[in-house]
Amino acid sequence: MTYHSMDFKGYELTTDSEDVVPIGSLDYLSTKYESLDYEVIENELFCEEEQKKGYKYIVHKDFARWMTFFWIGVMTACVGITISISIEIGTNFKFNVIKKYCDGCTQNDCMLKPYLIALVLSIVPSVVGSILVVYIEPMANGAGIPPVKCYLNGIKIPRLTRLKTLVVKVIGVICTILGGLWGGKEGPMIHAGAIIAAGISQGKIITLNKDLDALNFFREDHEKRDFVSGGAAAGIAAAFGAPVGGLLFSLEEGASFWNQALTCRIFFGSMISMFTLNSVLSAYHGYAGDLTYRGLLNFGKFDDLSYHILDIPIFVLMGVTGGLTGAFFCHSGLKLIRFRKRYINQKWKKVAEVLIVCSATITIMFLVIILSSDCKKIGVDPIEYHIQFGCNKGEFNTMAALWFQLLEGSVRSLFHDAPDVFNVPTVACFCLCGYFFSLISYGMNFSGGLLIPGLCIGAAWGRLVGLGISHFFPNTNIGIYALIGAASQLGGITRMTISLTIILVEATGSIAFGLPLMVCLMTAKWVGDFFSLSIYETQIELSGMPLLNWDPPPLSSNINAKDLMTQPVISFMTKETVGNIVKILKKYSHNGFPVIEYVHNCELDEGNFKTKCFLRGLILRSQLVVLLQNKVFDGPLTNNWESVTIETFRQDYPRYSDIEDINLTQEDVKLTINLSRFMNPSPYIVQHTMSMPRIFRLFRAMGLRHIIVVNECSEVVGIVTRKDLARYRVSRHMGKISVTELKFSNKIN
Amino acid sequence: MTYHSMDFKGYELTTDSEDVVPIGSLDYLSTKYESLDYEVIENELFCEEEQKKGYKYIVHKDFARWMTFFWIGVMTACVGITISISIEIGTNFKFNVIKKYCDGCTQNDCMLKPYLIALVLSIVPSVVGSILVVYIEPMANGAGIPPVKCYLNGIKIPRLTRLKTLVVKVIGVICTILGGLWGGKEGPMIHAGAIIAAGISQGKIITLNKDLDALNFFREDHEKRDFVSGGAAAGIAAAFGAPVGGLLFSLEEGASFWNQALTCRIFFGSMISMFTLNSVLSAYHGYAGDLTYRGLLNFGKFDDLSYHILDIPIFVLMGVTGGLTGAFFCHSGLKLIRFRKRYINQKWKKVAEVLIVCSATITIMFLVIILSSDCKKIGVDPIEYHIQFGCNKGEFNTMAALWFQLLEGSVRSLFHDAPDVFNVPTVACFCLCGYFFSLISYGMNFSGGLLIPGLCIGAAWGRLVGLGISHFFPNTNIGIYALIGAASQLGGITRMTISLTIILVEATGSIAFGLPLMVCLMTAKWVGDFFSLSIYETQIELSGMPLLNWDPPPLSSNINAKDLMTQPVISFMTKETVGNIVKILKKYSHNGFPVIEYVHNCELDEGNFKTKCFLRGLILRSQLVVLLQNKVFDGPLTNNWESVTIETFRQDYPRYSDIEDINLTQEDVKLTINLSRFMNPSPYIVQHTMSMPRIFRLFRAMGLRHIIVVNECSEVVGIVTRKDLARYRVSRHMGKISVTELKFSNKIN
Repeated sequence: MTYHSMDFKGYELTTDSEDVVPIGSLDYLSTKYESLDYEVIENELFCEEEQKKGYKYIVHKDFARWMTFFWIGVMTACVGITISISIEIGTNFKFNVIKKYCDGCTQNDCMLKPYLIALVLSIVPSVVGSILVVYIEPMANGAGIPPVKCYLNGIKIPRLTRLKTLVVKVIGVICTILGGLWGGKEGPMIHAGAIIAAGISQGKIITLNKDLDALNFFREDHEKRDFVSGGAAAGIAAAFGAPVGGLLFSLEEGASFWNQALTCRIFFGSMISMFTLNSVLSAYHGYAGDLTYRGLLNFGKFDDLSYHILDIPIFVLMGVTGGLTGAFFCHSGLKLIRFRKRYINQKWKKVAEVLIVCSATITIMFLVIILSSDCKKIGVDPIEYHIQFGCNKGEFNTMAALWFQLLEGSVRSLFHDAPDVFNVPTVACFCLCGYFFSLISYGMNFSGGLLIPGLCIGAAWGRLVGLGISHFFPNTNIGIYALIGAASQLGGITRMTISLTIILVEATGSIAFGLPLMVCLMTAKWVGDFFSLSIYETQIELSGMPLLNWDPPPLSSNINAKDLMTQPVISFMTKETVGNIVKILKKYSHNGFPVIEYVHNCELDEGNFKTKCFLRGLILRSQLVVLLQNKVFDGPLTNNWESVTIETFRQDYPRYSDIEDINLTQEDVKLTINLSRFMNPSPYIVQHTMSMPRIFRLFRAMGLRHIIVVNECSEVVGIVTRKDLARYRVSRHMGKISVTELKFSNKIN
Repeated sequence: MTYHSMDFKGYELTTDSEDVVPIGSLDYLSTKYESLDYEVIENELFCEEEQKKGYKYIVHKDFARWMTFFWIGVMTACVGITISISIEIGTNFKFNVIKKYCDGCTQNDCMLKPYLIALVLSIVPSVVGSILVVYIEPMANGAGIPPVKCYLNGIKIPRLTRLKTLVVKVIGVICTILGGLWGGKEGPMIHAGAIIAAGISQGKIITLNKDLDALNFFREDHEKRDFVSGGAAAGIAAAFGAPVGGLLFSLEEGASFWNQALTCRIFFGSMISMFTLNSVLSAYHGYAGDLTYRGLLNFGKFDDLSYHILDIPIFVLMGVTGGLTGAFFCHSGLKLIRFRKRYINQKWKKVAEVLIVCSATITIMFLVIILSSDCKKIGVDPIEYHIQFGCNKGEFNTMAALWFQLLEGSVRSLFHDAPDVFNVPTVACFCLCGYFFSLISYGMNFSGGLLIPGLCIGAAWGRLVGLGISHFFPNTNIGIYALIGAASQLGGITRMTISLTIILVEATGSIAFGLPLMVCLMTAKWVGDFFSLSIYETQIELSGMPLLNWDPPPLSSNINAKDLMTQPVISFMTKETVGNIVKILKKYSHNGFPVIEYVHNCELDEGNFKTKCFLRGLILRSQLVVLLQNKVFDGPLTNNWESVTIETFRQDYPRYSDIEDINLTQEDVKLTINLSRFMNPSPYIVQHTMSMPRIFRLFRAMGLRHIIVVNECSEVVGIVTRKDLARYRVSRHMGKISVTELKFSNKIN
């Protein structure tokens, strides 16, 4: 029985239908994405290396892991510091220029000049940032959380962890914030941390074509993933000063198999990241050595966060509000993205859009500031950026104070400033404009995240709630309502729960307030999920990435391997001819091939010997390509058997040659390769009766790429890959659960 | 080919050698322990139930899960409140009685009366607690952390989660603390939470023989484990006011497969637990409704925890000290336990030991207090328990103040009291006595944990370090050294890292201090691990419980399934005679049996049809027992096929009948059972070439009990169970890694 001659339907890149995908459809899975190989291939080469190097090698590798996490922490913090300080310097410069022209101008007629200056000072960085993202590296777009999440889930995402992406992202995010767009630096920090982790752990930089030939033993998807999850955590630790939050984010979004040692290392990396950032920033601000300098807490420390049991229902209601507004945000965001995909589909249009939005932001800001006449005496609050702006001498415009700060600063003001600093109309106006601009900016081509904008909007309406309550109960601490509002709003948009609770707890330094935060975040998640997908899910589903959720679809135990698997499979013999391998690799785009063998004299019944074909292992396309390239053929002349070690395979990781680029002579093609030394000798096999939930859990927990399905006679009959599992999508809309089967397409818009 | 006739060597309860196990040996695995069945058996009954009940059932089950976690939180908190308030009342009574006799007695000659009173008031509760533990329920001994850890790892531990254990534990821990023994209530709270979780989630109380017939769908090991891990977390949340710490403890010690939804629920339960405890205790103390009442923070809030970079080396040194003293503690503890096993081996001796240790504690305490003349003016510090004790009027004895408080109070005093409150000799003496008594008490028969004693000892020597440093740098905040000392000492004993960091951060309310804590805990762990096992590991290894570590032993990739598995296996046919089943069940103590079938007309080569036996599934002893009991036999009269549903199996969970207790008639024995409807139709199978690390990860990640091994002809050749994997023990002693193969025995002392 030969499998080769059979009719082919691909099993990783199944494209049953080449339907025209409606723009912005959520019902398709892209076939562009491949899976990562999280499985360690324990072939002969691997065992030989391990046995040869012994326990010392294990200790050495372990030490290298800790050191790598140390440097991930340090470098991520350095990126954070670069971004922070650049933004600080840039913002101060911009603010002072504008202030110079604004102060002293108490009439509206002299506002044109500062307006134009502000416009230019905002448009230039915005457009530069946008051009970088659009023309140089589109992967640096947005916050980068969804692709990092998908990477950790096991999807190969091209260019995600390149140095180029990092550089564009860092410059881009500085430009975004200097340009006054509604985007934060926190989301991008997660992506930046992930890139740094991937870079450091691999000891080579592909963008610069440099191979340091260090840490070779980390060159496999499995090790790289562990580092990347640490990098993402370090990013959060640096962005929010929240190492535990970073750890939990990384676990909530990424890991599936919980490993104590890895968790320790991730936590260590996050701690180092926060420590480095704190050391440098406290020194920069003139408090060298004082690592608990208060200015480092992102949102300021709440000195009093006492709440009463009777506050809990209010917090729940605020959670509901956050969930509703968050769901509306996600829903409208999806519509906007569809609009963009249809109409803003050329590069120059994308940059132009940023230009227009940026101009609109500045214009509306000036209009709002001029129209509001909310002047307060300087000194009533600790706002950094005082601007006179139409107010009398010794006073400042509170609306301007909110707008001209960085968003982090605005959040801090809304949390901590005395109740009478901002009037109700000022805060309401800021909140509405913020919501509008965040929404408009979402999906636009610039580098920046939604975390801080979300918190800012929420803090604004939360403060309004607090002001309302303080109307009846004068001693109310309005800061806690602002905090709950911020949490609810961001929770409603992102649907994060545990990690966001911890991040906010850490960023505000108030553990006692964990329960109220948790309550409102849970409520926001439940309410939000009732109406729409989260913002990240929306982005992932739009891109058609085959993300595997935590749990298998409900009621799927009647679907079994037989229904899921793709068949027939293309297999190789343990001794296969080079010609055959080349032919198959060129013809099919598969990434994994079962290796089979005919066993003569297999004792089936007592005394009865038969010939039967049995599974021997699994070999990957990437391994075959390396074997062909190095001409590891059987034969008297071309036998490179001994010279090929596990290092040979690591050398090319992660970008292997294309089969088309390999030149083989006519003689080569006639030779054979013995695959048994290189293949994975014990791939995971399941029986064709195994139910989907069991396969799903096996696949997800072990981080697999291929599961081989055997029939009741133990013959290989199919292969289950990520796409076969990901194509069942569970949606819980309006309280109803439904499972849809997605279609495949290789041209998702 | 019949497997039955083959010579038998058990595959779960292998007892190769009936060696006499040396007392207190660490090199044996007990065969007494069975594994839990974490695998969901997705047989026909399961699928039918799921399909019949539909999505509503899923939603209902999900809601029930959340509610169960809610009640776990509430009930755990209630137990915590009961313990706290009982101890508070008891201690106040005891203190006031002693104070009455002490105050006014400034000469040493009138000390006999208070001494005798203290002796009686301590011995009575200690002995009562000890009698309860020794005679009523030995499972309530100690803190209970090691068995809970093993349970979460997948080991069935008899009587671990009974109501009786809970009652004895709660009364026992109150007695321990009133008796002035060096034991804490925090460890037992973890165990208490676990018992409550198991109880609530199962809807029946075996101790009282009550079945509420509720929550039947949670009656499986898999669901129960999830609840128990939540209960343990809730216990920590209640004990330390640390919900995140509880969550992380539960994950660090228990879970292997990280599930987002479960984590959310655990966190929710912990939050509810802390919230309930806070509400009630704040009301009890007269601050009803104020949930951030400061008195609830276990170790008081540090207002200033600023530290300098130059402190870090000192913290590392303190970590080293903690590691060394911790390792010595564990090492001596092991020797003590061996001594006890040899000489204190009768029940009355065990109680007598507690009596003697208790008397010694009180006697030494009085001697030390009388000999010390460290008197301070009342009012210089916030200590609750002022006792004059040989001092002049208006003064109090600081040594007595340290000793007469609860240990939590002593920790708080050592953390927060002004530098001049306690003299150096006072603290040093307290520290040494504490170390000695904690060590002596470890392994003694009473209910109480080591967490608080560990912190207390560490806080004492940490404070000494702080006092030393403040000698040179007068402005030093000695509290932070006490905190670091406490962390180092406890870390050196228990080797907890992340969870302990977070617990201390939460219990002291100071996030900024996370990094120093982490640094000293890591150091303490590394140093401690260099010299000895942790206290929990010691206990687990002594008991011979087959705990599976996080990672497979290093360099084990050359061990494969063939070497690991136990063979031959005992199998059943899909249609098996009742007589055969009964015979096998009586003869062997196995818990899982592969189900096989002879397939006639199986096409092996094209056109060639043969008879071959193939694996069809796996059936558990417990299932077979239920089938026999309900007489689910094929045949015209006894066919109960339809009446048996998945509920039938749940009814008897978790204590199934013994095969010897089932009465079958002569006719029954001749009938057959069709197992195909009840067996697990797709057990996990691995090829006999699969390496140990891969099998280990599969086993651990999926929470398996049996893995079936097939040979190259796909025939069942062996079974791998927990013991086959657990018998390879990795030890990293003095920096050297070694792997030993443990022996089995069913009579571990």
